[in-house]
Amino acid sequence: MKLLHIVPVTGDVITPGMLEFLAEPLDKDTVLVTEQIKKGPASIECGYDEALASPPILEICGQAKELGCEGIFINCFGDPAVEAARELVDMPVFGGFVPGALIASGLADRFTIITVLDNVVRMIHSNIAKLGLSSKLGSVRVVNMPVLELGHQDELYRQLTIQSIKAVEEDGAQAILFGCTGMIGGTQTIYNGLLEKGYDIPVIDPAQTSVKMIETCVKLGIKPSRMTYLPIPDKERV
Amino acid sequence: MKLLHIVPVTGDVITPGMLEFLAEPLDKDTVLVTEQIKKGPASIECGYDEALASPPILEICGQAKELGCEGIFINCFGDPAVEAARELVDMPVFGGFVPGALIASGLADRFTIITVLDNVVRMIHSNIAKLGLSSKLGSVRVVNMPVLELGHQDELYRQLTIQSIKAVEEDGAQAILFGCTGMIGGTQTIYNGLLEKGYDIPVIDPAQTSVKMIETCVKLGIKPSRMTYLPIPDKERV
Amino acid sequence: MKLLHIVPVTGDVITPGMLEFLAEPLDKDTVLVTEQIKKGPASIECGYDEALASPPILEICGQAKELGCEGIFINCFGDPAVEAARELVDMPVFGGFVPGALIASGLADRFTIITVLDNVVRMIHSNIAKLGLSSKLGSVRVVNMPVLELGHQDELYRQLTIQSIKAVEEDGAQAILFGCTGMIGGTQTIYNGLLEKGYDIPVIDPAQTSVKMIETCVKLGIKPSRMTYLPIPDKERV
Amino acid sequence: MKLLHIVPVTGDVITPGMLEFLAEPLDKDTVLVTEQIKKGPASIECGYDEALASPPILEICGQAKELGCEGIFINCFGDPAVEAARELVDMPVFGGFVPGALIASGLADRFTIITVLDNVVRMIHSNIAKLGLSSKLGSVRVVNMPVLELGHQDELYRQLTIQSIKAVEEDGAQAILFGCTGMIGGTQTIYNGLLEKGYDIPVIDPAQTSVKMIETCVKLGIKPSRMTYLPIPDKERV
Amino acid sequence: MKLLHIVPVTGDVITPGMLEFLAEPLDKDTVLVTEQIKKGPASIECGYDEALASPPILEICGQAKELGCEGIFINCFGDPAVEAARELVDMPVFGGFVPGALIASGLADRFTIITVLDNVVRMIHSNIAKLGLSSKLGSVRVVNMPVLELGHQDELYRQLTIQSIKAVEEDGAQAILFGCTGMIGGTQTIYNGLLEKGYDIPVIDPAQTSVKMIETCVKLGIKPSRMTYLPIPDKERV
Amino acid sequence: MKLLHIVPVTGDVITPGMLEFLAEPLDKDTVLVTEQIKKGPASIECGYDEALASPPILEICGQAKELGCEGIFINCFGDPAVEAARELVDMPVFGGFVPGALIASGLADRFTIITVLDNVVRMIHSNIAKLGLSSKLGSVRVVNMPVLELGHQDELYRQLTIQSIKAVEEDGAQAILFGCTGMIGGTQTIYNGLLEKGYDIPVIDPAQTSVKMIETCVKLGIKPSRMTYLPIPDKERV
Repeated sequence: MKLLHIVPVTGDVITPGMLEFLAEPLDKDTVLVTEQIKKGPASIECGYDEALASPPILEICGQAKELGCEGIFINCFGDPAVEAARELVDMPVFGGFVPGALIASGLADRFTIITVLDNVVRMIHSNIAKLGLSSKLGSVRVVNMPVLELGHQDELYRQLTIQSIKAVEEDGAQAILFGCTGMIGGTQTIYNGLLEKGYDIPVIDPAQTSVKMIETCVKLGIKPSRMTYLPIPDKERV
Repeated sequence: MKLLHIVPVTGDVITPGMLEFLAEPLDKDTVLVTEQIKKGPASIECGYDEALASPPILEICGQAKELGCEGIFINCFGDPAVEAARELVDMPVFGGFVPGALIASGLADRFTIITVLDNVVRMIHSNIAKLGLSSKLGSVRVVNMPVLELGHQDELYRQLTIQSIKAVEEDGAQAILFGCTGMIGGTQTIYNGLLEKGYDIPVIDPAQTSVKMIETCVKLGIKPSRMTYLPIPDKERV
Repeated sequence: MKLLHIVPVTGDVITPGMLEFLAEPLDKDTVLVTEQIKKGPASIECGYDEALASPPILEICGQAKELGCEGIFINCFGDPAVEAARELVDMPVFGGFVPGALIASGLADRFTIITVLDNVVRMIHSNIAKLGLSSKLGSVRVVNMPVLELGHQDELYRQLTIQSIKAVEEDGAQAILFGCTGMIGGTQTIYNGLLEKGYDIPVIDPAQTSVKMIETCVKLGIKPSRMTYLPIPDKERV
Repeated sequence: MKLLHIVPVTGDVITPGMLEFLAEPLDKDTVLVTEQIKKGPASIECGYDEALASPPILEICGQAKELGCEGIFINCFGDPAVEAARELVDMPVFGGFVPGALIASGLADRFTIITVLDNVVRMIHSNIAKLGLSSKLGSVRVVNMPVLELGHQDELYRQLTIQSIKAVEEDGAQAILFGCTGMIGGTQTIYNGLLEKGYDIPVIDPAQTSVKMIETCVKLGIKPSRMTYLPIPDKERV
Repeated sequence: MKLLHIVPVTGDVITPGMLEFLAEPLDKDTVLVTEQIKKGPASIECGYDEALASPPILEICGQAKELGCEGIFINCFGDPAVEAARELVDMPVFGGFVPGALIASGLADRFTIITVLDNVVRMIHSNIAKLGLSSKLGSVRVVNMPVLELGHQDELYRQLTIQSIKAVEEDGAQAILFGCTGMIGGTQTIYNGLLEKGYDIPVIDPAQTSVKMIETCVKLGIKPSRMTYLPIPDKERV
Repeated sequence: MKLLHIVPVTGDVITPGMLEFLAEPLDKDTVLVTEQIKKGPASIECGYDEALASPPILEICGQAKELGCEGIFINCFGDPAVEAARELVDMPVFGGFVPGALIASGLADRFTIITVLDNVVRMIHSNIAKLGLSSKLGSVRVVNMPVLELGHQDELYRQLTIQSIKAVEEDGAQAILFGCTGMIGGTQTIYNGLLEKGYDIPVIDPAQTSVKMIETCVKLGIKPSRMTYLPIPDKERV
C-alpha cells in the first residue's frame, strides 16, 4: 500500500531519520510517498502559518490518486487543511492531532498535550472542541522551543520530561501526547523519565500513531464520511 | 471611523445594494472600505473554498492599518481566516458567524441557522463547538441554493420562510439566524412570514450584526485577546 | 431613540459621572431615561436583594412604552428581573451580565469575571450556566468591596488590577469582565496594569457593553424571542 | 419535627386533600405548618409571577424559626425564591423542582417533565441547566391547562396520560416527572396508563418527593451549603 | 417495611455499630435484613474487586422478594452490581454513590468526594459521568487508608478533616461527600472541623443517605425505570 | 506477536469464519490465542450477563502473560471486565466498544450504533458517557435479534441495512458502528445498501477495529495508563 506523506512546511525538515521513524510501525509493504509544499511557511506555529500552508497542501492532496496513494498523512499536529482535504479526495486523510487524541482517550481518562509554543495552544483547544473530547484534555503545556529547533533532541527531551512530570503533578495527567509531529523519537525517554518518578503512563507520538491509523483505515476499507465531508461543488476558482 | 470590509470571494457579488445594506445600522461617520480578494473561489461553500480564500484574505488584512481602518469585517458566515487575522492584526476582526451566534444566544434559548448548502453544515457545527455554544443551537437547515444564486431574492425569501417555519415546528427554534452573509435584506419578510403562523421570534442577519459589533468594539476600545490570538512569530514564509 | 435606564437599587448611587459614562458609547440622538426603584435594597449583593428589587423593577418596566422607550437597561450585573421583564414588555431588555459575557466570549477563549463580594458568585455561575457558556468562564474573583463603597475608585482600581493579574497567572484568563455595573470607568487603568505585566487582553465594562447592545438591537429591529419569553397570562395578581 | 409549608400564590388553592396528600409520605410526628402569601399572583405560571411572589415568600421564610420549623417547602415546581431563602435562613429549603429532578435522575437515564403551560418551559430549562442535569432531560411537555384549572382531575389525568405516552414514544422518556406541584394524586393513574401500553416507568410527584427530602435532610442533619448560599449582608432595605 | 442490606465483601466488617448507624435515619418499622456475600474480595477497592463481588451480590439480590424485602441497599460507594440488580429485581436498588451524589448536588453547587485509595478514583469519575453530574464534582480526594483500616476512627476522622479543609481551600468544595460507605459516623466531627475554619458546609454520609432514599422510594411507590433497566432475557447461564 | 482473544460467553459461537474474520486485518505474524470462558452466560445481552461473565474473563486475562500474549481482546461490544482487566494486567486490553467509538469519531461528526436488543442500549450510553464522546453519538438503534441468532446473516444484514438507512434519514447519522462484535462480515453489504440510497458513509466493524488497535498499541509500545488503572491492591479474595 502507498500512503502520501505531505510535509506541510517549506523548512529543511525532512531527514532520513524522520522518514525511518514514520515507517517504523508500518507494514513492510507500506510505502510512504513524501511530498513537500514549495510555497508557505518554514514551519507551522500559528493559525497564520496554517492558512498559508493550506492551499499548497491541498494541491498535493489532489495528486494523491495519480501517485497511486490510498491514504494521506499531513505531517503536522495542527491538522492543517485536513478537513478540506477530506472534501477534495475520497480516502483516509489524517494529520497528527485526531489519531493522537483518540488513542490517548482510549488509554487514559485525562491526558496532557505538550506542544512547542504558546502560539498553538488556541488551535489545540479548537481542535479538541471540534472532536468533542474536551472533557479528557487535562491541560496543554509547551516546551517553549520553535519547531525549527526541535532537532536539538537532548534539550527537547529534557524539556518534554520536565513538562510531562509537571503535567502529572500539577494537572492530573494520566497520559502524555506530544503536540508536534516534529518531536521525533522521544517517547521512550520521556516514559522512562516519568517512570523514575513513579508515574507509569503512556507517552504517545502523534506521527507514528497517525500513519498507523491511516494504514489501518485502508486495510479495514473505511474512510471519512462523505456526509460529514461532502464533495466540493464545481465552480470557478481563480 | 473606518472599517475594512473584505469580500473574500472572487465572484461578481459586490452590489450597491449590498454596501448600503451593510452601512444601514452604522453611524453616519463610519466608513466601510471595501476590498475584494483577487485570487480564490468565486464563492465560499465548503472548507476547500475557505482554505483557498484565506491567504488572499490575510494579505488584505495586513493592509488594514495603512488603509486607516480600525476594524475588519470578513464578509462570510464561515469566518474564513478570522482567527489567523486576529493573530496578524491588532484590532477587532469578525466574520459573520460569531456575532450572529452570540446575539442569537442573547435573545433566545435555542436558535436555528439556515444556510445555503449541505456542504457548509460541518463548518457551522465546528464553529459553534469552538465558540462553546452547541447547547443553544437547535439545528442547521439549508435553502439548497448556491451562494451565487442568492440574488434571486423572491426564491431565497420563499425558501428561508419555509425552512424557518420548519425550524420552529420541527426543531423547536426560538430564533432564526441566517447562515450566509449573502442572504441580504430578508429579515423583515421572514419575520412576517413566521408571525403569520403565530411565531414571534427574532430573525437575525449576520452581516449587519457583525459590522455593528465591530463598530461597537472600536468605540468601547476592546479588541481580541492577544493571549488567545498571539502575535505571529517571525520566520521565513516563501 | 429613547432607552429606559432602570436603577434597581434604592441607594444614593446615581451620579452625573455614571450617566455620562453610560451615554459615552451611544449615538448622540440616543437618550437614556433614568428611573430608580423607590422600594427595595440599597444595593444588590445577593439573591435576597435581587428578589426584593424585582417587583419594583418590573413596575418601572411596565411604563417603558408610555415613556416612549424602545429598550430597557436594568443596571445590575446580576440581571435582576430581566427574564420576567422580557415576558412583560415586547422590546430589548438586558442587564449587564448577558451582553458582557457574550462579548467576552467573542474576543477570547477563556475569561474571568471580577465581582464585588463572595455572595454573588453563585448567581454568576447560575447565569453563565443558563447562558450555556460555562466552558468559557475560567473563574470568578472578587475585590471584596461592597457595592456602596465602589466610589472609592483608587482602591477599586487597585483591587481590580490585583485580581486581574491573578486571573491571568493563576486561572488562565485571556479576558477580564467586570462583574458589577457599578465598577465605572476602570477598564483603561486595569488594561494598562495588565499590559505592564505583558498581558495584552481585553478588559470589558458590562454597563457600556449592555447599553450599546440594546441600542444595536433596536437599530437592527430585533428583540427577545416571544417563544422563549412568552407574554404573561392574564390573571388576578393582588 | 415541624416543617414550614409555604403556599406561594394567593389563589384559593389550599384544600384538605392537598394537605393530606403532602403529609402522606411523612413520619407521623412530622407536622406541616402551612402559610400562604397574602400578596402576589393567584398562581405561578411565568417568571413575572415568580418575581411578584418572591418577596412575600421570603417574608414567611423569615418566620420559620419562630414558628419552630426546621425545614421549608415552597410549594411550587418553579422553585420561586428558593435560592434567596437559602441565604436568609439556615435550614433545608426546597421547592418542587430540585428534589423531583434529582430522584428522576436516580431512577432513569432520561426523563420528561410534563408541566402546565408553555410559559413555564423556559424556567424549567433554566432550572435544569443550573442543576447541571440537562443531559438527563429528554423533553418538557405541557398539558396546556392553567394551574387554577388543575382541580378538574379527570381532564388533568387524561392529559397527563396522553403526554406521558407521547413522551415515551416520541422523546425517549424513561421516567415522568410532573412539572407542577398542583398536579395532585395522579401518579398511580398515569403509571397504569403507561403500563397498559407496555411502558413500566416511574411517575414522580414533585411535591411528595420534596417534603420527604426536606424531612430526610433534617433527620440526617444536613442543610444547604453556606458557601454556596452565603448569609445575606447587612444593609438598608426600604 | 423490610429492606435488604447486602454487605458486598467477605471481610469481617459487620458490626453492631454499623447496623445501628444505618438504621438511625429510618422509620421505626423499617427493618434491615443483612446478608453478606460468601465469596469475593475482603473489601472493594478497585474494579477487579467489584467484578469479583458482583455475581454473589446478584445472587443475594435474587432472594430479595422471598425474604420479603421491598428495596435493596448494596453497601458500597462504588455501586457494584447496582445496574445489573435493577435488571434482575423490580424494586428500588441503590448503592452509596447515586443517592450521595444527588443529595450533594441539591445542597451545593460544587462538592468534593473523599474516598479511601487512589485505586477507586477512576470508578468514581466513571459513576459521576454516567449520572451526568460531572459539572458539580469539584474533586476526588483520598485519605489513603484501606477499607479494612477504617475502624481506626480517630485516624480516619483526622484524615477526613484534613482532606475536607483542603477540598474547600484548594478545590472550591462547597460540600463534602464521603466516598466510602465504611466511613461511619464521622459527619458531625468533620462538619465541626470545617466550621472551626469558618466553612459551614454539609458533610454527607452516603450510607445513611442511601438507605433513607430507598425507604423513600418504597413509600412513594417509585422504582427504577424498566425502560432504562430492562428485565433480563431468558437464556442459558452455566 | 501473540494476542489473547477471549470469548466472554459460553455459547457455541466460535467458528472458523469468526477467527478468520478477526485475523483478516492483522499482520501475518500476529497470532490470536483464543480462550473461551467456561462459566457464565451463553451470550451477553444485559448488565446481568456482563456481571456473570466478568470473573471468568478476568481469570483468563490473568493467564495472558504465561500464554505469551502481549495484548488482550475481550470479544464483546459491551467491554465487559475491560477496566478491571487493565488493573490486573499491564498490557493493551480492549473490548469492541472503545476502539469502534474512537475510530467512528475520527471519520464522522455524528454516528449511530446499531446493536442487538433494547436491553443493551443503557450500557452503550454508559460507555459513551464514560468515554466522553456523547456529543458524537447520534443514536443507538437495534436490529432486535438476540446474539445467538446473528448466524442468520441474510436476516441480520437486511435488518442492519434497514436500521442504517433510518439512522441516516431520521437521526442524522454520518457513520454506522455495529454495536455487537458478533455482527460479522456485513460492513461491505451494509455500505453498499447505504450507497444505493446515496449515503456514502463509513460502516465500521468493532471487532476488526479493536484487534487492529491492540496490535497497533503493542507495536507503538503504549498501554493503558497505570495512573488511570492502578495495579490491584493485595488482599484476601475468597
